[in-house]
Amino acid sequence: MSKDPLVVFTPSGKRGTFPVGTPILTAARQLGVDLDSVCGGRGICSKCQITPSYGEFPKHGVTVADGALSEWNAVEQRYQEKRGLKEGRRLGCQATVQGDVVIDVPPESQVHKQVVRKRAEAREIVLDPSTKLFYVEVAEPDMHDPSGDLERLRDALRQQWQLENVTADLNILQTMQPVLRKGEWKVTVAVHLGDAENRPCIMHIWPGYYDGSVYGMAVDLGSTTIAAHLCDLQTGEVLASSGVMNPQIRFGEDLMSRVSYSMMNAGGAAEMTQAVREGIRGLFTQIAAEAGIDKTLIVDAVFVCNPVMHHLLLGIDPFELGQAPFALATNNALRLRAHDLDLNIHPSGRVYFLPCIAGHVGADAAAVALSENPDKSEELVLVVDVGTNAEILLGNTEKVLACSSPTGPAFEGAQISSGQRAAPGAIERVEIDPVTKAPRFKVIGSDLWSDDPAFEEMIAATGVTGICGSGIIEMVAEMRMQGIVDAPGLIGSPEQTGSDRCFLDGRTYSYLVHDGTDKGGPRITVTNRDIREIQMAKAALYSGARLLMDKFGVDKVDRVTLAGAFGAHISPKHAMVLGMIPDAPLEKVTSAGNAAGTGARIALLNSSARAEIEATVRAIHKVETAIEPRFQEHFVNASAIPNAVEPFPILNSIVTLPDVTFNTGGGDSDGGRRRRKRV
Amino acid sequence: MSKDPLVVFTPSGKRGTFPVGTPILTAARQLGVDLDSVCGGRGICSKCQITPSYGEFPKHGVTVADGALSEWNAVEQRYQEKRGLKEGRRLGCQATVQGDVVIDVPPESQVHKQVVRKRAEAREIVLDPSTKLFYVEVAEPDMHDPSGDLERLRDALRQQWQLENVTADLNILQTMQPVLRKGEWKVTVAVHLGDAENRPCIMHIWPGYYDGSVYGMAVDLGSTTIAAHLCDLQTGEVLASSGVMNPQIRFGEDLMSRVSYSMMNAGGAAEMTQAVREGIRGLFTQIAAEAGIDKTLIVDAVFVCNPVMHHLLLGIDPFELGQAPFALATNNALRLRAHDLDLNIHPSGRVYFLPCIAGHVGADAAAVALSENPDKSEELVLVVDVGTNAEILLGNTEKVLACSSPTGPAFEGAQISSGQRAAPGAIERVEIDPVTKAPRFKVIGSDLWSDDPAFEEMIAATGVTGICGSGIIEMVAEMRMQGIVDAPGLIGSPEQTGSDRCFLDGRTYSYLVHDGTDKGGPRITVTNRDIREIQMAKAALYSGARLLMDKFGVDKVDRVTLAGAFGAHISPKHAMVLGMIPDAPLEKVTSAGNAAGTGARIALLNSSARAEIEATVRAIHKVETAIEPRFQEHFVNASAIPNAVEPFPILNSIVTLPDVTFNTGGGDSDGGRRRRKRV
Repeated sequence: MSKDPLVVFTPSGKRGTFPVGTPILTAARQLGVDLDSVCGGRGICSKCQITPSYGEFPKHGVTVADGALSEWNAVEQRYQEKRGLKEGRRLGCQATVQGDVVIDVPPESQVHKQVVRKRAEAREIVLDPSTKLFYVEVAEPDMHDPSGDLERLRDALRQQWQLENVTADLNILQTMQPVLRKGEWKVTVAVHLGDAENRPCIMHIWPGYYDGSVYGMAVDLGSTTIAAHLCDLQTGEVLASSGVMNPQIRFGEDLMSRVSYSMMNAGGAAEMTQAVREGIRGLFTQIAAEAGIDKTLIVDAVFVCNPVMHHLLLGIDPFELGQAPFALATNNALRLRAHDLDLNIHPSGRVYFLPCIAGHVGADAAAVALSENPDKSEELVLVVDVGTNAEILLGNTEKVLACSSPTGPAFEGAQISSGQRAAPGAIERVEIDPVTKAPRFKVIGSDLWSDDPAFEEMIAATGVTGICGSGIIEMVAEMRMQGIVDAPGLIGSPEQTGSDRCFLDGRTYSYLVHDGTDKGGPRITVTNRDIREIQMAKAALYSGARLLMDKFGVDKVDRVTLAGAFGAHISPKHAMVLGMIPDAPLEKVTSAGNAAGTGARIALLNSSARAEIEATVRAIHKVETAIEPRFQEHFVNASAIPNAVEPFPILNSIVTLPDVTFNTGGGDSDGGRRRRKRV
Repeated sequence: MSKDPLVVFTPSGKRGTFPVGTPILTAARQLGVDLDSVCGGRGICSKCQITPSYGEFPKHGVTVADGALSEWNAVEQRYQEKRGLKEGRRLGCQATVQGDVVIDVPPESQVHKQVVRKRAEAREIVLDPSTKLFYVEVAEPDMHDPSGDLERLRDALRQQWQLENVTADLNILQTMQPVLRKGEWKVTVAVHLGDAENRPCIMHIWPGYYDGSVYGMAVDLGSTTIAAHLCDLQTGEVLASSGVMNPQIRFGEDLMSRVSYSMMNAGGAAEMTQAVREGIRGLFTQIAAEAGIDKTLIVDAVFVCNPVMHHLLLGIDPFELGQAPFALATNNALRLRAHDLDLNIHPSGRVYFLPCIAGHVGADAAAVALSENPDKSEELVLVVDVGTNAEILLGNTEKVLACSSPTGPAFEGAQISSGQRAAPGAIERVEIDPVTKAPRFKVIGSDLWSDDPAFEEMIAATGVTGICGSGIIEMVAEMRMQGIVDAPGLIGSPEQTGSDRCFLDGRTYSYLVHDGTDKGGPRITVTNRDIREIQMAKAALYSGARLLMDKFGVDKVDRVTLAGAFGAHISPKHAMVLGMIPDAPLEKVTSAGNAAGTGARIALLNSSARAEIEATVRAIHKVETAIEPRFQEHFVNASAIPNAVEPFPILNSIVTLPDVTFNTGGGDSDGGRRRRKRV
């Protein structure tokens, strides 16, 4: 008896011997090699494409001769003619083993393919969607065995795909019978593979082989904007993305004003629930139209959001989130159906909410944790998601702590005299000349600095309209660096600063950034009140981080990740000058972009990541800033804008700041914080 | 160390020793004695009432002295004053063991109490509802442990009631927070205890102790009428029952005409779905109003119906049920939510459909099997549910066979010249005088026979309007018994019968039952066509039963159960004279009343009965009459109306029929069946 041929799969390295005539797909399945197939080896779907290699493979201890696989057959020929196969490719279900062979499974033929992420340091997303397609051949009805069509379809899924205990949505029962007959008892079904709470369930059915895909939505529901990504659940690809303003803004700009609206108005919460659901429906319609897909093919949606948005979308009055002890209705992950939330996707499309971490640390923070994985980091990493509330995570493989801190809206340009949202015309980058104390800046929509001769022309459409969140941070940091603002946060007089851009403005000084009045534009200034707002916001953020460091028992962190759309635009250098974040090597301060949105996408594309983040969140140690006396203490200490010799020696290795303090007789009402001004 | 006291519970006989001071409820729980409690032993609900017995109990080997239980306490006193306790009763959670004691658990204190059934031979229904009430004390929120309110409620259910993995409906999330606070963290919840497909789930929540109940609907959805029983899930009691006409009647009287309507009209199935759901909603509203309960307290509903009604209620086009091979969309039991079917009960109220047995043998037949338990009978029992289709079950503990037979609507008074539905004025009982050959009869709405002098007055409101289904059976059987009809089914001439009530009517003779024309009423006759219709119907029924007997390998059955509202009115004697059912001792032919409705009630009140009937139905051997050649053979043989010397010797021990056959030259077109007329 001759020895059975050896089959080696790359890149997995899995190997085994198989009788001559074994299809490669069969060999792959027996070895647990990740080779895709929708049609189950019937030569229909072409998902099982593989590339045989020929020649000497000392690494694998095998020599592959011509004829190691069966000859190109009629099925492959037909597929080649109809659709084309890449050079060297074979169909794994058609090519059979004839001799020792090395088989490469290209990425696109893997079920659990990796989804491309833009950031180099970002962890891979391995595709493992909630819902997959299966082609089956169903037994015909028989009067001798009066089983239902569904039961025979379930039998086929069990026998042909080892799917046990599959149920069906009522809409499948309602539509299945003509489809089975149209497909002559051959159909493709989309099966939600089940989860912690639900059995596998048939979501869609098509006659014959369905050559399309099913889709999911990853939704980042923010207080201000709702962003959604439409993903192909078969490839992991983002087909279309878009965002809209959260229509709840008309009930209040920030979270607390929405909670107040609900408290003050009977039915207010319900109004806001309806508004946000309408907004989401509109967004879904727009994105599906852009991608040109039928909305009922969207079978899964993942939501990340802060607790107030979470409750309002679910139709829960956020009343309790507005007052201590900030009790969530539920903190666990939720598995719902689209119709529960009036979403306009597949009628029983699955909806997943990531767990909330605490009353102020929501599913968005959980999504950031899923994207940034502090729990898998050897280095101690501080992850800060900057928004109206800052969510802060600190941890490493040992443990992860979380808190939120009420930064207020100053970082978003609100409550700043010349502040505005990030939009064309808004100042986003600033440098102040050390000698002239004059600023130059960039505005959104232009790549030129304001001292470029072509700048005026470039921005003619908008003019310079105000300062956005990242702009105000750079502005205040630059003002501090160039001695225009002192450590306690006072803007100096023209005499003190040597700049006639400083001018008396009520009882304190302001700083003129840009005067556009001659062109009908605004006069953009930074007032001492603006400095105070930024001080409060950054003190809140810093204090939260510092509190977690106390709890962790550390004085410094190895790495800082700035998350959030805003985080993406902050200059790490200026953030540290301002004392927003604790000291860390500048190259270790990075932006994660919209990490919450990325976390939503991971949970959408990799359903096992859901159990993972649920376990992670259960293990996170929650710290409530509101009841920690040390938070107040840190807050008071953190209001000053640091320099090299401040008690918290931040950034001393990176930039050296002039040690300046203005001794003013007047000044704004600054309360106790003034006490800490150095004299 | 003195010995711990012995506690003996009756009627269970469970016994054990317990330390002095152990509450009786605790002892009962440890022994697994079925003693109810909603409040968990807090002296609130009074469900745990028990009766201690004192004196000598040789049977239990114990003497109970005064002082065997702790003294009557303040909690019992308060309850006594507020609500009253029956003489001798104690609260099991308050009374503690002080010495050896015998404790009787009265039926109303048992969780799994037996529900009263009217029929003596009927099996008990043991209460074991899907949804039960639990009083819990929930931990308050704490900023140091930011769990959600739901999670703390779940913890309380786990710790205080050992309920694991409880989920909550979204509506609970939406309403729970103020209720928890109103109840000061003490609440009563209604929990659906879960089933084969679903985890336990909180359905309702009330502040403090809720002294009410939750409810269920048992629905028998027939082609003609929809009947529903509102049951208290805590007591098993039927609070209100009602029925309405199935509004689908306007689309067709019988099943096949509704299937045709759907085939002939685009959207026809959807119209019928909408109609029946509307009808059910109206019925539910009416019944809930009658019982004075809030419809959202109805948390469970069970439906039994034939396959066409089943599919139409579910929104499935019954097209496939109208043609071989009669493929059901699904034959398994279904667990749905009220909103899936637009029912106006609790928004996520559970809905259960019993399994269908085959394409023509529906969930109604399964319900009959659940009620009548042929699978648990030592005797071989034939269960016949008579309607437009007859569903027939034959079996014993060894096996059960099932089929359906197309009897047509004649048994319901349709297609009979003077036929009508069962309604006041319809003839329902008949006797024909052996000498005068004149009938006397009773009509629905009157207890008097028509030869009673007060009869005319009694029925003045309606007059005599026609003959209902059970009336026509008695009529034809009596006509046969008195020699007015011969065995092949011909009505004799006045000369042949000796009755001038027989008159030539076209080419055959008819028989005058009642002439109401002088009072403006109808002239009620039985035509030879009517006899033919009844012959066809009874032959179909008989042939189905006979086919099952062949398959079982028997010539006779031990017992016959007539189910269905119609079955309740059939006279067993006349049914056997007619040859509707196989021979059996008359005292063994009984009516089960609305067995399908009873089966629905069992599945509603005893949720473990659901798994039981699902297993039973899987084991039932289905016989398809349409493809069994012997069915045709039996049918042809069965068209004659039997007498003592017919080949199938029916009833020969009970009544003796004159052996009469009319030799007519003319006669109606009777096809092949005429061949079997004896000459």
